[in-house]
Amino acid sequence: MKDAYVASMKGVILKIFPQARLVDLSHEIGPQNLVHAAFILDAAYPYFPEGSIFVSVVDPGVGSKRLILAAKTSHGIFLAPDNGLLTLILEKEKSVEIRSVTNRRFFLSKISATFHGRDCFAPTAAWLARTPLLFEELGPRIQHFHRLSLPSPQASGGKVRGQIIYFDHFGNAFTNITRSFFNSARMRAGAEVRVRGRSVGPLQKSYFEVPPGKAVAVFSGSDLLEIAVSHGSAREKLKLKEGFPVEVS
Amino acid sequence: MKDAYVASMKGVILKIFPQARLVDLSHEIGPQNLVHAAFILDAAYPYFPEGSIFVSVVDPGVGSKRLILAAKTSHGIFLAPDNGLLTLILEKEKSVEIRSVTNRRFFLSKISATFHGRDCFAPTAAWLARTPLLFEELGPRIQHFHRLSLPSPQASGGKVRGQIIYFDHFGNAFTNITRSFFNSARMRAGAEVRVRGRSVGPLQKSYFEVPPGKAVAVFSGSDLLEIAVSHGSAREKLKLKEGFPVEVS
Amino acid sequence: MKDAYVASMKGVILKIFPQARLVDLSHEIGPQNLVHAAFILDAAYPYFPEGSIFVSVVDPGVGSKRLILAAKTSHGIFLAPDNGLLTLILEKEKSVEIRSVTNRRFFLSKISATFHGRDCFAPTAAWLARTPLLFEELGPRIQHFHRLSLPSPQASGGKVRGQIIYFDHFGNAFTNITRSFFNSARMRAGAEVRVRGRSVGPLQKSYFEVPPGKAVAVFSGSDLLEIAVSHGSAREKLKLKEGFPVEVS
Repeated sequence: MKDAYVASMKGVILKIFPQARLVDLSHEIGPQNLVHAAFILDAAYPYFPEGSIFVSVVDPGVGSKRLILAAKTSHGIFLAPDNGLLTLILEKEKSVEIRSVTNRRFFLSKISATFHGRDCFAPTAAWLARTPLLFEELGPRIQHFHRLSLPSPQASGGKVRGQIIYFDHFGNAFTNITRSFFNSARMRAGAEVRVRGRSVGPLQKSYFEVPPGKAVAVFSGSDLLEIAVSHGSAREKLKLKEGFPVEVS
Repeated sequence: MKDAYVASMKGVILKIFPQARLVDLSHEIGPQNLVHAAFILDAAYPYFPEGSIFVSVVDPGVGSKRLILAAKTSHGIFLAPDNGLLTLILEKEKSVEIRSVTNRRFFLSKISATFHGRDCFAPTAAWLARTPLLFEELGPRIQHFHRLSLPSPQASGGKVRGQIIYFDHFGNAFTNITRSFFNSARMRAGAEVRVRGRSVGPLQKSYFEVPPGKAVAVFSGSDLLEIAVSHGSAREKLKLKEGFPVEVS
Repeated sequence: MKDAYVASMKGVILKIFPQARLVDLSHEIGPQNLVHAAFILDAAYPYFPEGSIFVSVVDPGVGSKRLILAAKTSHGIFLAPDNGLLTLILEKEKSVEIRSVTNRRFFLSKISATFHGRDCFAPTAAWLARTPLLFEELGPRIQHFHRLSLPSPQASGGKVRGQIIYFDHFGNAFTNITRSFFNSARMRAGAEVRVRGRSVGPLQKSYFEVPPGKAVAVFSGSDLLEIAVSHGSAREKLKLKEGFPVEVS
């Protein structure tokens, strides 16, 4: 948001489709951090109206021959570089149609080598918002695309093992242990949660069930196992880092 | 803005009321800092159109039994946890009707324990924006609610005493001495202002009346006594902190 | 965005013109940094719809007698303090009409001494968005206005010399060497680029033509010579600072 990048993309969109409703998802993904981008997009998209166009430009390969993907699902259309950013969404969504955006009719007439967000992604999104049927004209259907190799949680011997993948603004730590994985491993409310061997107590229903300043494990609003500190920052207070192992027993 | 939280709330609102006009107030309140949230909301709300819905979710008690308040004033409807966030507004506004939002019809069908902003506040705001008359169906009227115990300015012996309560982005220091308190204490333009015993000169009309780099006391755009440094940061230059005493004589 | 300033301006605009489309350009210009503001505005405005109203309030002289400028070009109307912020735009744009905004009918009835963004700029912008013809009623036409004395690139002896003027969020360094200046000096693709005497290799077409971690010079999406590090921060990796000399040969 410091630079003119985001505003230029919005200007391009409004020039093509003045009625567009623009919602900022996040502009504070760490530079080139595809894993964070994938998790944030995955957490937000189910809450948007059907037919939304999601534009995700974490694009370290800009200017290379990496493809631009357009994926149509029942939720809407996702535009992203072919770098794995849509991994989580494409795992979950059924009946996805993916196209490689090659039709230059959807791009600005002058395409820079460093800013495809403005020159390719934004105008394509605007044309799709204006006329969703244009999806079929974006370019050829494709079957193969890049996926991120994300760490998977493991279940064995009555335990579930995962790791910390993300910290939010408050310092809450999110793990790759989803509620559905937890349930399928027959874990229960009250299970003991350990981070790097250190107990953070039994799984609770909300932050509020421990006193201020105490660690607590809950399921987050996006159904991931979360380590928090009531009224504080788990990241700072428990000195947590991304990749730290988390075990539930 | 780093995380998916704000965007998810906006998605929820637009799903219910696609015509909603969304304006971000602030997403950089220090975690759980109710005093800052109260002051920022108080400074901004008078400038919004009548009938606006203000959604304020600084909510350290999420998941506990704290109530969700909806306060209707002549300016619009304020939604906030019952934690004091509305203290300043409810002190000023006349003919306020306050309800405890208990009608689950206004919430998402699945309510998480950690993110009522998305699951309760946002959908309630969207329904109210769509149909303001629904206010009466939110839940029962209440008379008692939490108030922040904010420091009050004092007047005695021809002096007014207050303290620094907030720093803005530029490093300007805001005090709890309002223009109306200042006037009612019969203070005048040209009164001497001291911070922690150190003079910052007479009250001026604008930053510009002192040379760049010099300290200056003015009334801010929200009518609070403000300590600034022309073309600089008072916080850094004068080494100020929240709670420092301010005296006008 | 931390404070209530931006939101108050938006509230004022929507009160006057509820249909206004609001797009944030940047709220992270360094305090009083007119050069950055000028460059960012210059990079973004060509991508906005014709008839846009651009409101730029980097305003260290607020409360002084500095004028408020309204400049009408074929792209739209630019509102800014008369402090040089529009320098780059007024150099480029032809057939510009500039007025000094003096008609208090366009301001809020109560004007503070510290926040003309809210009290003067925002309401003027809203009235103009609602009725562009009001431009002629803003105040008298003027011919003279402040310009920033920006460093110019130089060409001599088969070399072009400029300097670093800005770093973006990713740590990419932008120089004052434009593509048109580069071309008019008959420089070619493949020219050698040096920062403070140290080579960053030949001018490339995109970041991608060097391996991750390596320095690369390209023309940016806004047609300025840019020093980057592929998949990294040129600012940190090459220890660059604003004002460092850049030479192309």
